[in-house]
Amino acid sequence: MESRVFDAALAVYAEHGWSGFNFDAVSRVAGVGKAAIYRRWSKRTDLLKETLKARWEWVSAIDTGTLNGDLIALARMMFDAHAGPCGDVGFHLRSEPRRFAELRAFADPYRDDLVHEGRRIVRRAINRGELPASASPGLIMDVVVGAVINHVSSTPERLRSAMIAKRDQFIADLVGLVGAGTSDA
Amino acid sequence: MESRVFDAALAVYAEHGWSGFNFDAVSRVAGVGKAAIYRRWSKRTDLLKETLKARWEWVSAIDTGTLNGDLIALARMMFDAHAGPCGDVGFHLRSEPRRFAELRAFADPYRDDLVHEGRRIVRRAINRGELPASASPGLIMDVVVGAVINHVSSTPERLRSAMIAKRDQFIADLVGLVGAGTSDA
Repeated sequence: MESRVFDAALAVYAEHGWSGFNFDAVSRVAGVGKAAIYRRWSKRTDLLKETLKARWEWVSAIDTGTLNGDLIALARMMFDAHAGPCGDVGFHLRSEPRRFAELRAFADPYRDDLVHEGRRIVRRAINRGELPASASPGLIMDVVVGAVINHVSSTPERLRSAMIAKRDQFIADLVGLVGAGTSDA
Repeated sequence: MESRVFDAALAVYAEHGWSGFNFDAVSRVAGVGKAAIYRRWSKRTDLLKETLKARWEWVSAIDTGTLNGDLIALARMMFDAHAGPCGDVGFHLRSEPRRFAELRAFADPYRDDLVHEGRRIVRRAINRGELPASASPGLIMDVVVGAVINHVSSTPERLRSAMIAKRDQFIADLVGLVGAGTSDA
């Protein structure tokens, strides 16, 4: 039952965001009675928090040995999360905590994890001499993560399967631009 | 009356998105009776469409004479739109048309305008010899627009005023990276 509720809760959150995330909708999509859901999760915040923990893959430690490899791995992770069937979860998690304070306690850590992973990637690249000491982790992350998300979110529906087929080429071009743009800084 | 309704409608859409965009909320925020709003706009789509036309500044033609200048102007435009008090309008316009078909007819053109402006900027830069003929307008736009939006949307609330104060430095660094990253491509 838990597994069906998590699947349904992720789909409902992806489709409607926090303002449409309620036990009625989750119950309907999951085919599980509302009373049973309430007994297990008494608040919507608990249900969403546990759903994200169970179903929303996030930054796993990246360490391929090169800056290029690390940025490709990071870009793929972001691409797959946002282009997937519940990709709107990623967009909601980025914008909703500003509007709904009750989401911050468990949504902000997703952003913070990404920031920390970016800092580690850039610090290692500086140590290996791949980046100048002045390289800005924040800027590099904004470029890589931002470009992937912009690419996925601004591609019209009819071009979506072509976009997915060309994922690796897009990422190679993007990471190539970042490498050339930061190496002589 | 129209002006108050547009202000209220923009604020309601920024805060709640399409699923919370209704005549009750707009009427309450505007202090204008619902019947009067209905008489002027019979459908929510009409109200949102006209509100965006009246209140959501979008890409105005950019042509500063250099690639650097054009990208700075574009980045500023994106920064100011998304960091402003109704900045969430920008986020909704990017993600909601995929979920709500009724928005596409008037929301998609905002994306298309941006794509066309990006193509014009890159084409002129190629003609001036500032970019190689192989430069990809799509990638350059994803990097500039995506990085600005990522920067604005991932900055925590407590760092927001510092982010706004450092806008021009962030944009100079970003455009510098893009220039270095594309010139030897």
